[in-house]
Amino acid sequence: MTERFAELSPTEFFYRNREIAGFTNPSRALYSAFRELLENSLDACELHKIPPEVYMGITLEEKRESNTGVYRIRAQDNGSGVPEREVMKAFGRVFYGSKYILRQSRGTFGLGGTLALLYGQITTQKPIRVVSSTGGDRIYSYRFLIDIERNKPKVLDRKRHDNPTNWRGTIVEFSLVGNYTRISGKMAAYMKQTAVAAPYAELKLVDPYGRLYFFRKTVEEMPSPPKEAKPHPHGIDAESLGKMIRQIDPEASMLEFLMGGFHRVGDKTARRFLRYMGMEEDRRPKDLTVEDVVEIAKAMQSFDGFLPPSPDILSPIGEAFLLEGIRKEYQPEFLEVITRPSSSYLGHSFILEAGLAFGGRLPGDRGEVRLYRYANKIPLLFDEGSDVSLKVIQDINWSYYKRPTDGPLAFFIHICSTKIPFRSLGKEFIADIPEVEREVKASVRALLRNLSKYARRRERHKRLERRVGVYYKYLPLIAEFSSKLAEKEEVPEVEELVRKVMEKHEGR
Amino acid sequence: MTERFAELSPTEFFYRNREIAGFTNPSRALYSAFRELLENSLDACELHKIPPEVYMGITLEEKRESNTGVYRIRAQDNGSGVPEREVMKAFGRVFYGSKYILRQSRGTFGLGGTLALLYGQITTQKPIRVVSSTGGDRIYSYRFLIDIERNKPKVLDRKRHDNPTNWRGTIVEFSLVGNYTRISGKMAAYMKQTAVAAPYAELKLVDPYGRLYFFRKTVEEMPSPPKEAKPHPHGIDAESLGKMIRQIDPEASMLEFLMGGFHRVGDKTARRFLRYMGMEEDRRPKDLTVEDVVEIAKAMQSFDGFLPPSPDILSPIGEAFLLEGIRKEYQPEFLEVITRPSSSYLGHSFILEAGLAFGGRLPGDRGEVRLYRYANKIPLLFDEGSDVSLKVIQDINWSYYKRPTDGPLAFFIHICSTKIPFRSLGKEFIADIPEVEREVKASVRALLRNLSKYARRRERHKRLERRVGVYYKYLPLIAEFSSKLAEKEEVPEVEELVRKVMEKHEGR
Repeated sequence: MTERFAELSPTEFFYRNREIAGFTNPSRALYSAFRELLENSLDACELHKIPPEVYMGITLEEKRESNTGVYRIRAQDNGSGVPEREVMKAFGRVFYGSKYILRQSRGTFGLGGTLALLYGQITTQKPIRVVSSTGGDRIYSYRFLIDIERNKPKVLDRKRHDNPTNWRGTIVEFSLVGNYTRISGKMAAYMKQTAVAAPYAELKLVDPYGRLYFFRKTVEEMPSPPKEAKPHPHGIDAESLGKMIRQIDPEASMLEFLMGGFHRVGDKTARRFLRYMGMEEDRRPKDLTVEDVVEIAKAMQSFDGFLPPSPDILSPIGEAFLLEGIRKEYQPEFLEVITRPSSSYLGHSFILEAGLAFGGRLPGDRGEVRLYRYANKIPLLFDEGSDVSLKVIQDINWSYYKRPTDGPLAFFIHICSTKIPFRSLGKEFIADIPEVEREVKASVRALLRNLSKYARRRERHKRLERRVGVYYKYLPLIAEFSSKLAEKEEVPEVEELVRKVMEKHEGR
Repeated sequence: MTERFAELSPTEFFYRNREIAGFTNPSRALYSAFRELLENSLDACELHKIPPEVYMGITLEEKRESNTGVYRIRAQDNGSGVPEREVMKAFGRVFYGSKYILRQSRGTFGLGGTLALLYGQITTQKPIRVVSSTGGDRIYSYRFLIDIERNKPKVLDRKRHDNPTNWRGTIVEFSLVGNYTRISGKMAAYMKQTAVAAPYAELKLVDPYGRLYFFRKTVEEMPSPPKEAKPHPHGIDAESLGKMIRQIDPEASMLEFLMGGFHRVGDKTARRFLRYMGMEEDRRPKDLTVEDVVEIAKAMQSFDGFLPPSPDILSPIGEAFLLEGIRKEYQPEFLEVITRPSSSYLGHSFILEAGLAFGGRLPGDRGEVRLYRYANKIPLLFDEGSDVSLKVIQDINWSYYKRPTDGPLAFFIHICSTKIPFRSLGKEFIADIPEVEREVKASVRALLRNLSKYARRRERHKRLERRVGVYYKYLPLIAEFSSKLAEKEEVPEVEELVRKVMEKHEGR
């Protein structure tokens, strides 16, 4: 009658439930492994303002039935490198990493890279290879496996090499059972969408058929990297507050604690908050009871005198880069991007950027509307149906807007935040937080108004062109005839006349 | 330039990322906490064939702004109880529990209950109370908090009581910040859908307004509980195989290992498999190299001589119970259920059960089609749009089928398996595994064919009724007139005549 109880190591938990992190089947697993490594490489560059040069190589090591096979993935970047004392823990241990701070980054859960390696080991039992250097005298290289039950790496081989050129970066290489055939389209799309959001990055993928996908960078500058943030009082809960209090200097006062521990809380705001709470400024946080802590956490949520979280800690793509990214990949006929003023939810600031493009080399049929979603610069290609942005796009009342219909339309929607409200470990769709939905709506509407203007202008122009086409047909004949009639040698310049007519009509 | 690295405890990881397990906002968090506790209570009963009696109480302890408040949830069941030595670890530790075996159960990740308590603690800092007994001499009660950094319970108070009546069960009580107003409909629906799938369970919910939702049981029997299964060779990976080999008796032979360790592998199958692999029967698993293990894992997936996983280890609702469950809650005019033959994916057997109902007290407009989804007897109420079953329902070509349109239609689709292919920790939708999709399609089509027959019969009957209506109007007059004409006292029985006409037309 009694139940057997058991404990799992974190590694074992994710190993058993790998579907929830995107490792559902051989094709999806290959995609997830690929993107997690690519995202980590880009983070290692962008967080340190290094223009990324990332090489991804996928080769088939062994064919198996029904298009599956053992693939070897190699990811090489010129990022910051991982310090020697951290490298094995960072790659061989679940819940260990550099993503566990309040900072915008592509990686969210600090989990994907290790899960990719784990999936490879589960399916092939082949050791993983990591080579890294932070640019110093040495390059470190490791061959290892992950000890699932103990949640730690089992190093098979460790080497140090000289680094005369001061090479800096990381190379990760491992094997996994995958299916490239079924997922190659999505992987190429992922790479292309990544290039759109990062025109300052040089991305290469050599696929199992030896095909090179090369995304050249077209700008040399880089956006400012995101900054680590202190917690904002609006996002704090009693548990975190208690933890912060346990960690501060026991002599500190409430005033000092508030000023030192929170995002955008200075002397004035801290005093006003303490007055609001009816608490003395020199009260010691250490003396607070659990009830006091709960009351403070509650008051922090209801007090409306805090400054909103600062957008300075975020790293949006930026209008210029987003324009350039879309332009270089799609050369659209019409393109407009906007950045919304920063906003916040639960104490996390976020910025919404959006673009709308028409025609050019955009994929899709005439009149088709596509949506490209991004979160912290990573493209989201799956589970569109559950995403807040699609909801907004589907709810557009097209009768309010004018749009050209002889080509495809595409929305690009990017949210960056210290915390993206993903609803699953697979990082594929965003919860419909009301604040986010509001910003998506506002930006989509603004873009549509501009599209309407463009569509009207374009229609007028087309109408004019048709009319001018008629002039063009007969004007040379009339000109020739008139010249003869006037017995002049020189025939008047028709082009010039037409140009004048068009200019007049377009009101330039 | 270098990054800071840090380690998180499992509790801290989920505390930070609680959205991925359904704790997105105060209303959704209340819903998730409620359902996780209810599901655990039902598991504690059903897995031991105890007819469940579960009481859920939700009270408002403190009102806060915009409809949020501190709620206290109490879940009380008559299940198996938790043994004293396990109770604190089971409730106060992430990755510790009784769900980490291969067995069908409502709980899947062994995580939800602890996360609910954790969410409560995070938002209120109030201690959790657990009372339990396995029916022996003692009842144990605890007041505790969860130590997030250490991933273990911090017991504040522990008591033992006599248990003269041999009470058996578990009571969990804790507070959390929630929003009942916005989610009350979903919670009632969750309870009702649970009752549909378990007509043998008595479920009570007293909500914060003091309203009682009472779902009476209408059957006394219970379905057979699921059984724990050994792994099936088709679902094995090299990592698990290596782990199994490390744990067996060092003297065992390959033949013994195969026969003892796997689901439905007996003497004959084991020998055939070893012949297929070209391996001696008395080879010792302990002497295998890593490459050998990988080869065996590969061969286990490609060898087609294994028996499919047995459905005996599963516990479907059963046609009689599903009929009864739908009938008692909706009294539909038409109701049909079917059970598909068991099937399997990746070595996990699963059974698909489906029902189709029309009219009666089903909710919805005329002609509306609703879908009620279940997995291992739990109702799935969110993210329908990403679920495999909805895809099938949306793809129905209604021109092939006849259906009555003067009331709503409802599909009920239940999949039970040792492993449900959920795509997120929130347990809300099922991945579109091809095997599952195939079974859903087959069952939906079979149900629709029966609905078509019913609709045709019903139409014929309606037509007849209209015709009989005309008879009814004139027949008594004719009868009276004829009697007078024949100068008889007695008027012939009209009812009897009409009945005969109808019988003749309906071909009875």
